[in-house]
Amino acid sequence: MASIFTKIIEGEIPSYKIIEDELCYAFLDINPLSEGHTLVVPKKEVDYIFDLDDEIYHHLLEVSKKISRAMDSVLDCDRIALSVVGLEVPHAHVHLIPIREIGDINFSKARVAMSDSKFQVVAKNITEALIRLYPDFA
Amino acid sequence: MASIFTKIIEGEIPSYKIIEDELCYAFLDINPLSEGHTLVVPKKEVDYIFDLDDEIYHHLLEVSKKISRAMDSVLDCDRIALSVVGLEVPHAHVHLIPIREIGDINFSKARVAMSDSKFQVVAKNITEALIRLYPDFA
Repeated sequence: MASIFTKIIEGEIPSYKIIEDELCYAFLDINPLSEGHTLVVPKKEVDYIFDLDDEIYHHLLEVSKKISRAMDSVLDCDRIALSVVGLEVPHAHVHLIPIREIGDINFSKARVAMSDSKFQVVAKNITEALIRLYPDFA
Repeated sequence: MASIFTKIIEGEIPSYKIIEDELCYAFLDINPLSEGHTLVVPKKEVDYIFDLDDEIYHHLLEVSKKISRAMDSVLDCDRIALSVVGLEVPHAHVHLIPIREIGDINFSKARVAMSDSKFQVVAKNITEALIRLYPDFA
C-alpha cells in the first residue's frame, strides 16, 4: 500500500508544497513543531533513510540544505534544525524545523496550530526564497 | 577560542572515540540521550552545518550513515535517528541517536548515566562493527 507521503507526492492527498524535482518532494508538515516546519521526502518509497541509494540520500540532503537556507531567509528563527527520526511513517523523510531553543526539538511536544491561509503564505514565501537563492528550482 | 569539539579533536579533552579521518571525528556523547548516542563533527570549526563546504557537508553525512549502520548492528534499538540542532556548541555536529520511540528525540529530556567502562565497551563495539562493515576505516 502506498505511504501517506506517496499519496501526497502523487496529489491524491493535498499538501502545502514547497518544491519537487525528479527525486524528491518538499512540503509543509501539517502538524508543525514550529511555523515553517518542512518535510523533504524521496519520491522512491524507502522506509529507512540509510537504505536509500547513495545518489538519492545525498540529493535529499542537498535539497534539504538549500530549502533550509531559503527558510532561514524568510522565517523568524535562530536556525533550521535537520532531523530524521523515521518512526511515524515508513517512508524516509527529513524534518527541517525552525528553532530558537533546544526544547524546540521535541517530537512529543504540542504542535502549532496554523490556518489554511497561513500555511499557504508560509509555503509561498519559502518557495519564492528558494527560487531567488537557487534559480534552477524555478 | 577553540570550541570544546576542537579541543576533543586535538586530544586536549579526552573522548570515547569511534573514528576519525581527514575531515571528521566521531565520538560518544558524554551526556547521551540513549546508550550509543554518537556525535560526528567536522574537523573544520564551522558553527552552522549549512555553512560547511559542500564536500565536507556530504562527507560528514556519508560518515554519519556508515556509523549509523555500524550502530544498528551492535546496539539494541529500532533505528538510528540523525539530528542536527546546533544551539549548544558553536561547532556543527551530527547527533546519531539510537531510538525505540518518538519521545526518544527530545533534547530536553534526562540523559542516560553510563560508567566509564560502559562508554569504553560501547565505543569499541561500534568501532569494530564499523571496520567490519567498511574496512577502509581501519
